[in-house]
Amino acid sequence: MLTCEILSVGTELLLGDILDTNAQYLSAELAAMGIAVLRRCTVGDNRERLAEAVEAALSRSDLVLLTGGLGPTADDITKEVCAEVMGFSLTRDEKALEMLKAYILKKYKNVPETNYKQADVPDGGTVFYNAHGTAPGVAMERDGKCVVLMPGPPSEMRPMFDEQVKPFLLQKTGGVIVSHSVRTMGIGESAMAETVADLLQGSNPTVAPYAKQGEALLRVTAHADSTDEAERLIAPVLEEIRSRLGAYIYGVDADSIQQAVVEALIAKKLHVATAESCTAGYISKRITEIPGASSVFDCGVACYANAIKQKLLGVREETLSAHGAVSEETALEMAAGVRALSGADIGVSVTGVAGPGGSENKPAGCSYIGIADKDGVRAVRFETGRDDRAYNRYVTASKALHLVWQSIQNY
Amino acid sequence: MLTCEILSVGTELLLGDILDTNAQYLSAELAAMGIAVLRRCTVGDNRERLAEAVEAALSRSDLVLLTGGLGPTADDITKEVCAEVMGFSLTRDEKALEMLKAYILKKYKNVPETNYKQADVPDGGTVFYNAHGTAPGVAMERDGKCVVLMPGPPSEMRPMFDEQVKPFLLQKTGGVIVSHSVRTMGIGESAMAETVADLLQGSNPTVAPYAKQGEALLRVTAHADSTDEAERLIAPVLEEIRSRLGAYIYGVDADSIQQAVVEALIAKKLHVATAESCTAGYISKRITEIPGASSVFDCGVACYANAIKQKLLGVREETLSAHGAVSEETALEMAAGVRALSGADIGVSVTGVAGPGGSENKPAGCSYIGIADKDGVRAVRFETGRDDRAYNRYVTASKALHLVWQSIQNY
Repeated sequence: MLTCEILSVGTELLLGDILDTNAQYLSAELAAMGIAVLRRCTVGDNRERLAEAVEAALSRSDLVLLTGGLGPTADDITKEVCAEVMGFSLTRDEKALEMLKAYILKKYKNVPETNYKQADVPDGGTVFYNAHGTAPGVAMERDGKCVVLMPGPPSEMRPMFDEQVKPFLLQKTGGVIVSHSVRTMGIGESAMAETVADLLQGSNPTVAPYAKQGEALLRVTAHADSTDEAERLIAPVLEEIRSRLGAYIYGVDADSIQQAVVEALIAKKLHVATAESCTAGYISKRITEIPGASSVFDCGVACYANAIKQKLLGVREETLSAHGAVSEETALEMAAGVRALSGADIGVSVTGVAGPGGSENKPAGCSYIGIADKDGVRAVRFETGRDDRAYNRYVTASKALHLVWQSIQNY
Repeated sequence: MLTCEILSVGTELLLGDILDTNAQYLSAELAAMGIAVLRRCTVGDNRERLAEAVEAALSRSDLVLLTGGLGPTADDITKEVCAEVMGFSLTRDEKALEMLKAYILKKYKNVPETNYKQADVPDGGTVFYNAHGTAPGVAMERDGKCVVLMPGPPSEMRPMFDEQVKPFLLQKTGGVIVSHSVRTMGIGESAMAETVADLLQGSNPTVAPYAKQGEALLRVTAHADSTDEAERLIAPVLEEIRSRLGAYIYGVDADSIQQAVVEALIAKKLHVATAESCTAGYISKRITEIPGASSVFDCGVACYANAIKQKLLGVREETLSAHGAVSEETALEMAAGVRALSGADIGVSVTGVAGPGGSENKPAGCSYIGIADKDGVRAVRFETGRDDRAYNRYVTASKALHLVWQSIQNY
């Protein structure tokens, strides 16, 4: 297996001015290609520290991918430093220069001479021409080691990687990596991991547990000569996981619970409507994140005030005064009310205490979630156990979406 | 000047499963404290490579900050490895154990024994107790070098850093750092930076421009012996910024436009109501993020379907058929409709094309935002210029909140 390190170059990264999304992008792409990323490093535009970092990475790994520091200013030294470390000289590339000039002249009257050096490329190296900016990428190979340089702006780096660097690297790898994510709700990461503890010991496929806010997932990853073979290695493990965790699994390779919900609604031609007090639009916002949501979602009501719960959803005054707004009874009437109001197949409601603060019986993080569907109306009490408004709203919305997902399974 | 390296630990980072926002957060915080971040590194949950990375960082820098790998599983080895490198032994901390148990028991019936090791802390080290998760943070100091370990989830790391690690580090730097953020909307980062170009040259306070999605902000930071002295250095610069950018500034040290809106509504005892088509609850979700929102927000309607726009908001069928759902006319009727429905002082509406895709006249990112207030009803056309659903929904909701903020100023 090829080993790789990623070097992000730029003082603006070390100052925290920009978020390094390139490193994540490349990590995921390389993992999918079966290249093992052993380490990532970020250094500033400093000749000595950059040279040291490149040399150290080359001493450990087959492949070093660098982003950033290919710009026109005196600060931009990545190419010069790497050429020196790898023992390559730089020569101006006429095609790169023409492309650079044409790119700049689309927007400006003149091409500053400072830009010219961006068209210098290593003799005997590989050039990745850049249609989305001024700096070409380059690769230098020596003694079985390879260094690849790409520009820092993601709008230039990503197409260059996808279209040119990836094919270049795939010639070196052989084999593929296939990975599937099993997403669960209603079980904690530790409990999930205990349930499949023996499977976590496997080496091909590997099974690894991860926690996300209010969710837990298992990633199953296999390495093989072909995709088919990798899938064959994964299939029995995935089946075993399903048999042990079935009730908690809402999707394999789903991006999110809202995606699973919208896809399931579309598949069964169902509509959902939301009545949200404490989450106040968070559920409808998440449902409508998914393209195509307009075919399954018509109506949501954020009903913070009791008057609105009564007026729009038909919650009865007696219910509110006898049981309070945060109660099972109110959740039931809200869910039934929004289902009737909208004509949707499934109505979901949330009323709760987001925090900060709450009472003894109704602490922060406590909520009632109602579901009205073809089987009638029901509600559950849900507690996050935290006094964290943002967390409570997110996790409560997730739980409500999961209950909608479960309701859909009965249609 | 203290030098520092940041080590992010976790195989999930190297696989590209999650984006490392901690490293950026810490970089910006440390820079503002006058601590030089020389390098950042990411390694997996691998004993040998982690030990090597910690040793290398310690050989170069005064301070090493690590995030991640403090979890309960066998993979989580950051504390053990760092203790070994620094020559510290680990002992169970009863307070940490009690906090951990209480934290888990709020949500689950039992505390798995695997979690116990999270309460082990280095003898003679510093403990940062964790109110937002199970793993305490720790610091170990030896021979003028210091290693600080924090949990990986940002919801745990950030409050721990802000409340405990930052004061701990400030004891080492001497002096204080005071920083204020001037938040603007309606002006781009470049135009904002040009307007205050001369101020960006200052050294104490420093003034630095940042772009955020749909916003631009200026951070003014002073370093001094006392908070009072730092504030005295900042005051005239802040005043100068206000005089030049006044119309665009919605808040100094506001966390967000929704916070500025809710605070302004509370201050003037006003209520707002929302009618959202393309954002479908995003505005009401953001307003109700802010504690205290219940005193200014009663009602929001997510009206994806035209039938709901008519039924709940009184949008006329003729308006929809003559001008379409995405039109100035519809936005006007939605804003007026939700104001009437809710009895709020200000009604805000959004109807637009979130994308992906759109038409020539109404491309993705194009929306109409309506405001109904004491001065009548008006609407603006807003374009983000992008075909990016998530970005368009966020930025359009921000723009709508900014229009609400402007409306409040007239009360």
